[in-house]
Amino acid sequence: MKILVINAGSSSLKYQLINMETEEVIAKGGCERIGIDGGKLTHKAHGETFVVEQDLPDHTAAISLVLNELVDKKAGVIQSMDEIDAVGHRVVASGETFTETTLVTDETMKELEPLSELAPLHNPAAILGINACRAIMPNKKMAMVFDTSFHATMPPYAYLYGIDYDDYKKYKVRKYGFHGTSHKYVSQAAAEYLKKDIKDLKIVTCHLGNGSSISAVKGGKCIDTSMGFTPLAGVPMGTRSGDIDVAAVEFLCNKKGMTFAEGMNYLNKKSGMLGVSGVSSDFRDLCAAADGGNERAQLALDMFAYDCKKYVGAYMAALGGLDVIVFTAGVGENTPSVREGVCDGLEAFGVKLDKAKNVYKNDGAIHDLSAADSKVRILVIPTNEELVIARETAALL
Amino acid sequence: MKILVINAGSSSLKYQLINMETEEVIAKGGCERIGIDGGKLTHKAHGETFVVEQDLPDHTAAISLVLNELVDKKAGVIQSMDEIDAVGHRVVASGETFTETTLVTDETMKELEPLSELAPLHNPAAILGINACRAIMPNKKMAMVFDTSFHATMPPYAYLYGIDYDDYKKYKVRKYGFHGTSHKYVSQAAAEYLKKDIKDLKIVTCHLGNGSSISAVKGGKCIDTSMGFTPLAGVPMGTRSGDIDVAAVEFLCNKKGMTFAEGMNYLNKKSGMLGVSGVSSDFRDLCAAADGGNERAQLALDMFAYDCKKYVGAYMAALGGLDVIVFTAGVGENTPSVREGVCDGLEAFGVKLDKAKNVYKNDGAIHDLSAADSKVRILVIPTNEELVIARETAALL
Repeated sequence: MKILVINAGSSSLKYQLINMETEEVIAKGGCERIGIDGGKLTHKAHGETFVVEQDLPDHTAAISLVLNELVDKKAGVIQSMDEIDAVGHRVVASGETFTETTLVTDETMKELEPLSELAPLHNPAAILGINACRAIMPNKKMAMVFDTSFHATMPPYAYLYGIDYDDYKKYKVRKYGFHGTSHKYVSQAAAEYLKKDIKDLKIVTCHLGNGSSISAVKGGKCIDTSMGFTPLAGVPMGTRSGDIDVAAVEFLCNKKGMTFAEGMNYLNKKSGMLGVSGVSSDFRDLCAAADGGNERAQLALDMFAYDCKKYVGAYMAALGGLDVIVFTAGVGENTPSVREGVCDGLEAFGVKLDKAKNVYKNDGAIHDLSAADSKVRILVIPTNEELVIARETAALL
Repeated sequence: MKILVINAGSSSLKYQLINMETEEVIAKGGCERIGIDGGKLTHKAHGETFVVEQDLPDHTAAISLVLNELVDKKAGVIQSMDEIDAVGHRVVASGETFTETTLVTDETMKELEPLSELAPLHNPAAILGINACRAIMPNKKMAMVFDTSFHATMPPYAYLYGIDYDDYKKYKVRKYGFHGTSHKYVSQAAAEYLKKDIKDLKIVTCHLGNGSSISAVKGGKCIDTSMGFTPLAGVPMGTRSGDIDVAAVEFLCNKKGMTFAEGMNYLNKKSGMLGVSGVSSDFRDLCAAADGGNERAQLALDMFAYDCKKYVGAYMAALGGLDVIVFTAGVGENTPSVREGVCDGLEAFGVKLDKAKNVYKNDGAIHDLSAADSKVRILVIPTNEELVIARETAALL
């Protein structure tokens, strides 16, 4: 079985064709500058990279080009589109409408529409991608796989905010969480790697990248997560503030003459690691600057590790224990100092990092960083959100 | 030595006269409706309550009345004002200007002035109270004791928000914390009660009342606390939301047609326990409603205990261990179900509540609720912020 995974942005689109028997990627690539002059497709297959430069007026043109490339004599990997068994689409926000991966139909597309206001930068692009695929492959089975649905198992006392309950009911303002496919993937992979039944495990998954979120996973189900109604909440991120007293934001808006909307842009684009360090939003730059003696870069890194550690502690308490900590995504997989900072001081709770094992060159494999006498296993598991999308899509067929 | 403690609000004022040798309250009371028609003083001394109804046009009139009452032949407890060795004033916000209790002088009063914008509802009233006392007792030594100064020992990675560092420097937007005198009092009282050196203890103090905050105290020093730039942040409270994704607030403001300022009023006055339950901001009402089957009241209580538990977990991690949990203030001292909810699930970390000991009628004494085999001691310690103010004032003389 072959599943095509589509992750559509507003002017870009990424894809992978995955062989479900082996779970290997047959081909992958991306389109850039959709709807803008200078469209470009980059396609990787047979160990080679193929580039096609061609204007892509809309998502339908982009999907057409991708499909052509997949069946192309030279760059292609399949004989015809018939070999694609289904298409899995990444969709960010499911609201409370969808709690799991859902088949694309006229009806579910209608239900998806109003959720765009929950993720105005992401959901409309996903809808464009789905509609383009449906136009070109009207009989192909397709699934929408949500970033949020792994978090749908959170209990109300975890997902509700302390606001008027009627406003929650009316406007659906609550914690949704994000990176769900990643948290799901690494928590399942952790159980497999440890040869344990996930039903018996209490796991904290740390998806740390340019955007970061931390989840508490009990018996395979998410019970809490650090992002909120939007991906602004939680630990500080590359350019996002993370958690902050709303009254501090109002004070800042008044002082700096910003509207609320401008304040949101400030918190999303100019804050976090970039704002604190004044150096960069990129952890490689921050580590280099800190190593070179830049105090604010070090401060930003210290803040990040400390805030992550507090979430690990909060979720240990929520889980009622802790068996596994998983680090994943760009920063989680590649930044030993962050992992050390997060684990530092958790020895009293059975978390003992082997500092020698912690420093290694990321080779895409799972690494166990626990000291021999660590009660809690500390794993790095490279995430694979596309594989989760493909698996969930295949499971629907 | 006798210290007069003054806690001035905008239209009210509370006072205690404390004998420092015995740390006993000699007299206490309060003025209501200052600057409004129908002023009233309630004064308690010699086991009796005295009420004086008299218009109180300003804080100076109120302080005069208090002093008259203290030296009154019938209601009084001292012969003359000379017996008052010093006056300790509660002040909410110290900003970064004052990191400890400070003597009132012309100079420090000038430095206090600009901090009013950090606590616009509280600091101006404290200034009125101090100025009134200085007008009437120009030669009396006075101290300002800040709600925030116990938190001045937080490290930068704990008190900074993930915003532009220059904005922190320029506008002093950071986490300050509140209820500092209470967190200080109960953490010291815990060490004394346990006959341990506070330097060796890792304590989480839960000040749970209509406003609630939780602090991490290591070796007697605060290293983190749940309230933020203002008392809005942290766990949900009587009418305050506690932590919430700022983007959720922007979304709500847009939906409900509220300005940012109106949104802040909504979060401060109509949210929290009141908003979630739809019943009351008072935990006694909530417990009664929940016992009567009201699901939203139960949900509000569950949220509160769960969010408190997550802070306990976060601070266990920040402290690198946990020796003592202290509950204090109205809800912390009087609500067994909240204490049970907070401790529930923390058994894996050595926190074992004795459920029988947990249910008792508050008698103003310290209670140890730990099970015999609990590694962590769980204490209820009635708070005494006035005594801390008096002690700190006496220490300055």
